[in-house]
Amino acid sequence: MEMIKTKTANAIRVLSADAIEKAKSGHPGLPLGCASIAYELWAEHMKHNPADPQWADRDRFVLSGGHGSMLLYSLFHLFGYGNLSIEDIKNFRQTGSLTPGHPEYGHTVGVEATTGPLGQGMGMAVGMAMAEAHLAAVFNKEDCRIVDHYTYVLGGDGCMMEGLSSEAFSLAGTLGLGKLIVIYDSNKISIEGDTDIAFTEDVAKRMEAYGFGVFRVEDGNDFDAIGAALEAAKADTERPSVIIVRTQIGYGCPAKQGKASAHGEPLGGDNVLALKENIGWESKESFFVPQDVYDHMETVKERLKAPEEAWKARFAQYCEKYPEMKELWDQYHDRTLAEKLYDQDEFWTFEDKPQATRNISGELLNRINKAVPNLFGGSADLAPSNKTALKGEGDFSREDRAGKNLHFGVREQAMAAIGNGLALHGGVLPYVATFFVFSDYMKPVARLSSLMKAPLTYVLTHDSIGVGEDGPTHEPIEQLAMLRSMPNFHVFRPADARETAAAWYAAVTSKETPTALVLTRQNLPQLEGTGKAALKGAYVLEDSSKETPDAIIIATGSEVSLAVEARKLLLAEGMDVRVVSMPCMDVFEEQTAEYKESVLPKAVRKRVAVEALSDFGWGRYIGLDGASVCMEGFGASGPANELFEKFGFTAAHVAEVVKSL
Amino acid sequence: MEMIKTKTANAIRVLSADAIEKAKSGHPGLPLGCASIAYELWAEHMKHNPADPQWADRDRFVLSGGHGSMLLYSLFHLFGYGNLSIEDIKNFRQTGSLTPGHPEYGHTVGVEATTGPLGQGMGMAVGMAMAEAHLAAVFNKEDCRIVDHYTYVLGGDGCMMEGLSSEAFSLAGTLGLGKLIVIYDSNKISIEGDTDIAFTEDVAKRMEAYGFGVFRVEDGNDFDAIGAALEAAKADTERPSVIIVRTQIGYGCPAKQGKASAHGEPLGGDNVLALKENIGWESKESFFVPQDVYDHMETVKERLKAPEEAWKARFAQYCEKYPEMKELWDQYHDRTLAEKLYDQDEFWTFEDKPQATRNISGELLNRINKAVPNLFGGSADLAPSNKTALKGEGDFSREDRAGKNLHFGVREQAMAAIGNGLALHGGVLPYVATFFVFSDYMKPVARLSSLMKAPLTYVLTHDSIGVGEDGPTHEPIEQLAMLRSMPNFHVFRPADARETAAAWYAAVTSKETPTALVLTRQNLPQLEGTGKAALKGAYVLEDSSKETPDAIIIATGSEVSLAVEARKLLLAEGMDVRVVSMPCMDVFEEQTAEYKESVLPKAVRKRVAVEALSDFGWGRYIGLDGASVCMEGFGASGPANELFEKFGFTAAHVAEVVKSL
Repeated sequence: MEMIKTKTANAIRVLSADAIEKAKSGHPGLPLGCASIAYELWAEHMKHNPADPQWADRDRFVLSGGHGSMLLYSLFHLFGYGNLSIEDIKNFRQTGSLTPGHPEYGHTVGVEATTGPLGQGMGMAVGMAMAEAHLAAVFNKEDCRIVDHYTYVLGGDGCMMEGLSSEAFSLAGTLGLGKLIVIYDSNKISIEGDTDIAFTEDVAKRMEAYGFGVFRVEDGNDFDAIGAALEAAKADTERPSVIIVRTQIGYGCPAKQGKASAHGEPLGGDNVLALKENIGWESKESFFVPQDVYDHMETVKERLKAPEEAWKARFAQYCEKYPEMKELWDQYHDRTLAEKLYDQDEFWTFEDKPQATRNISGELLNRINKAVPNLFGGSADLAPSNKTALKGEGDFSREDRAGKNLHFGVREQAMAAIGNGLALHGGVLPYVATFFVFSDYMKPVARLSSLMKAPLTYVLTHDSIGVGEDGPTHEPIEQLAMLRSMPNFHVFRPADARETAAAWYAAVTSKETPTALVLTRQNLPQLEGTGKAALKGAYVLEDSSKETPDAIIIATGSEVSLAVEARKLLLAEGMDVRVVSMPCMDVFEEQTAEYKESVLPKAVRKRVAVEALSDFGWGRYIGLDGASVCMEGFGASGPANELFEKFGFTAAHVAEVVKSL
Repeated sequence: MEMIKTKTANAIRVLSADAIEKAKSGHPGLPLGCASIAYELWAEHMKHNPADPQWADRDRFVLSGGHGSMLLYSLFHLFGYGNLSIEDIKNFRQTGSLTPGHPEYGHTVGVEATTGPLGQGMGMAVGMAMAEAHLAAVFNKEDCRIVDHYTYVLGGDGCMMEGLSSEAFSLAGTLGLGKLIVIYDSNKISIEGDTDIAFTEDVAKRMEAYGFGVFRVEDGNDFDAIGAALEAAKADTERPSVIIVRTQIGYGCPAKQGKASAHGEPLGGDNVLALKENIGWESKESFFVPQDVYDHMETVKERLKAPEEAWKARFAQYCEKYPEMKELWDQYHDRTLAEKLYDQDEFWTFEDKPQATRNISGELLNRINKAVPNLFGGSADLAPSNKTALKGEGDFSREDRAGKNLHFGVREQAMAAIGNGLALHGGVLPYVATFFVFSDYMKPVARLSSLMKAPLTYVLTHDSIGVGEDGPTHEPIEQLAMLRSMPNFHVFRPADARETAAAWYAAVTSKETPTALVLTRQNLPQLEGTGKAALKGAYVLEDSSKETPDAIIIATGSEVSLAVEARKLLLAEGMDVRVVSMPCMDVFEEQTAEYKESVLPKAVRKRVAVEALSDFGWGRYIGLDGASVCMEGFGASGPANELFEKFGFTAAHVAEVVKSL
């Protein structure tokens, strides 16, 4: 048995080395160093069925060190995920292949998360474990557990160094996520050399400090020790576990093992041959896998089918015995459920009084919670400000897994990564929240939401100099441009309650695009004519009576009412302008050319953009002949109304700028 | 003695409570909870002289929990920093005041760093301690220590939760920064309630794991215990220290102390009175400070002058005995030193062969290192890829403080914060480096560089789909827009070697603006006509022979050569276009209207922007009638040349787009 294990692990090494050699690019260090760990886990300890990669109760496996993608692809090939063929392996890193440089969720069957930017896989795994814990509490019955899986995540020194993982682990420890198992590939090598140059901390002690159970494996090729550690970690269900495995980067390749040069470049033809000789491989031929390895894997694959079959039988019994739970399960997994809000008038109806859009958002979130059972989210310690609490719902904690309100602590980056993990796990409808200016901390994670098409909702309040006294560190300026410029990401900045409803509607019905809701701290008036039209991203709010307007004022959020006021002033002076409300540039760009022309006719060149943030990106709409009333630098500390005045956000000034064109 | 200490600490409490009450906004929890700690430190243990806030060898103090700004302002008033008056205190958080909501570096005398976004102060303090350690190694003589100061940083649970501080502390432990002293205001309260909901980790154990000495104070008002811990921490010079002080948020205010509501809102008029009664304050009058407190502070201030006088005498002796060191000292502190490169032809001269701008950058960095003695920087574990190693210089480490090459580990966020700390400390010329796509991780910190006017240089290589096989997680798309949209931040994306020289020249001579150098992985040809003109941000590289060009192609970085090729193709078809190279939009925007018109005449509306990243922000230059050849979504994994072809970055396609206008 030990022999075929070693041989299969070596097949992972050989496939990885050959693929990277052929691609002339890639990272052999991790696949060679972790091949035995991965094989032992996937073949002997992990609950998964390659024949059904979407099985809801499968154990999750995240390769946080995404550069080691050939480890995953080799596993996929050997375990039969998505019938990944040897040809696919040969096409590693080639344009259009199923085997891109880093694992891409939604692109290659079996990839649970897009990884590469270090640390993020750790955060996503914590999110997956939270989803499991919550769904288990919601659905499991004493006589029937239908949600009961582990989440494994594998990463190296880089992932442990990233602050994101510290944030995520600290929260995981607090929450006692007993079914999270972190496998730390400790090879003591980083790109610049020995980790001693920058990373001498006692990782075990740090993980203990977070509340993890710590297990050690002294030799990354000792299958028995790996297996024992995995079983011990699984048995320790009161707290998350880390298994620190001492590995050798590039294991098996004599000239490279244990060296930084094994990390991120092909071994070189001679070294690949030396690897094969060293491990006693049967053939020097590239991409050669012995038949007995394939035969062995057939047995393994067959064996892996049983748990899902048992689960299916259990699930069938469950549905029969608890029909109301079956219905709830279907609701939890129905991504179209929120669409019914479109026709519910009460969702779109608000008192006609000035309100902060963050307050409206809080109200809407609770309306959604009545329509949809599976909201699950919270804030990075700003819930009272972000207005993100679900009323009447408990707090998700070590003691109460059914609670729907999440407390992330002051950990924006991990929060977003956890949000991605929740979205990827499925079954819950996640949202995360902080001040808009702190979206900066989440940027690298929001990018992964976009790349993975994970429709996470970001609630971002305190959206401009309207923050007031807290001053420039807390006043977003360039954050709209930062998020708007990201592909496949929708940024809504609603002008009043009905536009906020449209934004939330868009967010919770989005299937493949994350959404940010950018909301005010301060009160805004309710405007006439707002509503579902906001779902088109931009629309004519108040029109000129002329066929060709004298000018167009385009505004978003808190500045739309200013534009409406300015329009009145201009009308009194004989200028008849159109006001366009543009709550979401990204969605507007997705409309037909005809619609866009109808809102912003090319013939009208006198255009003024009004937005109390950076003008970066407005050139697309105002062109070379328009103007903007935007922030030209950072904000200031003072009462919000004084700041709006100071920086020119008055109807009179907007009117002046329009007239100056 | 104890009595006047308590009274002075209470003066801090009263001033803070009154100021926040008057402003109707602010954070009383920290100033009330930490008043005694701050007083004890500032009056008894910290080496500083309020009469000379710029004294080079002063101990640094960073308030990482910047929301507690009234603690600082109260200290400034009592210690006499910048003659901050009681009127200034009364103007807390008012427009234009010296006492904004969060401490702003360069705005209020005595503020060592802008803080507010949590965690960043911790990172900056680590940078300051690194600068001290390095300068001490460079300048101190056995018989004369002229660099010898501590760095103190105070922060609470939020700062400890942020991943940035974990990154920074782990590195500080590795480096054994013995003169860094972290004071952890442990009040067990966060905005959403008790820290137990999200933060139960054993902080002491975690800090020990990093290699910190851990000291404890059980009562945040026990001056003796605080003093003893500070002295113990100072004496422990082999490793950084953390002092965990158990405090009570909002201490002194009966109805508020120990509660989350003490954190971020005024206590309320009645509670302010209750506070004053509870601490036995002599007057209910707002902003009342007893004369004996002022008198006491005069004594303290007088006493604080002595160390600087001693230092000045020592420094004078030093200069006399070591005149060559005095000269070096002046060079280290001369912010104009690099300007001499402008006239050094060898700085601007390169072989005429294709080269990656990252390689050129590496060469230039080493040229600069010959002209300027105080470069001090490195990469987040990507130096071999970023080409940021200073050849012939050692590595800064626990053993070698004189080394100039920094190894940050895989910690982009802390790296940038440390870079800010280095810049704020002064004496060194810092730079930091990573892949361009990972500038995402540094965004919140880059924003502070801009806000603080800290001219840190960001070396960001692998700047487009030219990354190739690593794929979309590693291919920047929206990062240019993200950085360009930030106020007071210069983003250079040079097209060849001479433009890279201009970019580096701009970076190392910048006084108040941070600079990003965005550089290619792949080789680029050397172009005719490039050079110092790039210092204007954009310029005509190849002109049309017509007075009014038929069209203008604007390009940056790797796409400039493509624009030049496209121009040739168009000329062959009878179209005579201008090519504008625009290495830095931000600098171009700072030019005169005349210059801008000369480069991009308003009359020419056929404009095409070519840049292998997002088109977001190009509207400003191409207007409503132009077009762009940019990336419309994320990149892909494949050989770079194939990707450029696949996404339309060919001269033929650019020419097509120009013709289509």
